[in-house]
Amino acid sequence: MARILGIDPGLHKTGWGIVDHNGFHLKYVTHGVIISNSADKIEVRLGHIYKMLSNVIEENLPTEMGIEQVFVNNNPMSSLKLGMARGVAICIANIMGLMVTEYTPTKIKKSVVGSGHATKDQVSIMVQKLLNCGSVKLDAADALAIAICHAHHATHYTVIS
Amino acid sequence: MARILGIDPGLHKTGWGIVDHNGFHLKYVTHGVIISNSADKIEVRLGHIYKMLSNVIEENLPTEMGIEQVFVNNNPMSSLKLGMARGVAICIANIMGLMVTEYTPTKIKKSVVGSGHATKDQVSIMVQKLLNCGSVKLDAADALAIAICHAHHATHYTVIS
Repeated sequence: MARILGIDPGLHKTGWGIVDHNGFHLKYVTHGVIISNSADKIEVRLGHIYKMLSNVIEENLPTEMGIEQVFVNNNPMSSLKLGMARGVAICIANIMGLMVTEYTPTKIKKSVVGSGHATKDQVSIMVQKLLNCGSVKLDAADALAIAICHAHHATHYTVIS
Repeated sequence: MARILGIDPGLHKTGWGIVDHNGFHLKYVTHGVIISNSADKIEVRLGHIYKMLSNVIEENLPTEMGIEQVFVNNNPMSSLKLGMARGVAICIANIMGLMVTEYTPTKIKKSVVGSGHATKDQVSIMVQKLLNCGSVKLDAADALAIAICHAHHATHYTVIS
């Protein structure tokens, strides 16, 4: 059995979602969104993301993490901000002993909707159907989609038959 | 008295330098460069920077941190990588209770050399003269320059007359 943390980091909003996977079945565990206050200084915002994400890991004890592979846009300042939040998230995973795997956006969408060109709404609807978990916070739907994608593709953990 | 950590983060090389400042006099403490192996996975590299920088702070107990304000270049992928290392460094400072101040490259050069258009070599030579600390590792000279700049501009700590 693997407990998987999917994460969608951002300086303002960091979506996260956790699923269990025994090799055949997915089970929804929990999800949430970490919001940092844009009025705060950068170190306070990054420290907040660190502390909140550490709490999520300590409380739920996932063993591995899936994260979207970033294809940077044309705005270097946006890339820098995204990089800072992403750096903190990936760093915590390593500090707390989680294995990290990156997936392309296309692969994530294909895993959940069946098409690499699905819209955000389609992803959100399918995440709720696949996990049978009721309403999902919009910013966490992508994180849960990443966790599902990891469950479908990771082959390193033991399958319970 | 303030013990100041200057930091010049990068995914490959993170320079750091520490000085003491009593309001009038600067005293060199120590400096170094954290190198992450480009053959390692991204989470291992960021985790390494986190652990090494935590050790530097635990061993030397600086109370504040100076860091260069970034004017991103035109390469979003470079900005993303820089952002990840920078995010980790700024996050640790907050977690470990250091006050963080950002300075423009021009202000840093002006503080050390007297000109905002100084070369890297000029900065390195002046850092060694001002701190009377002998040879400085090239990648840490900028970090010490940032610490000196912070000593010259920060006014929040008590000056011992």
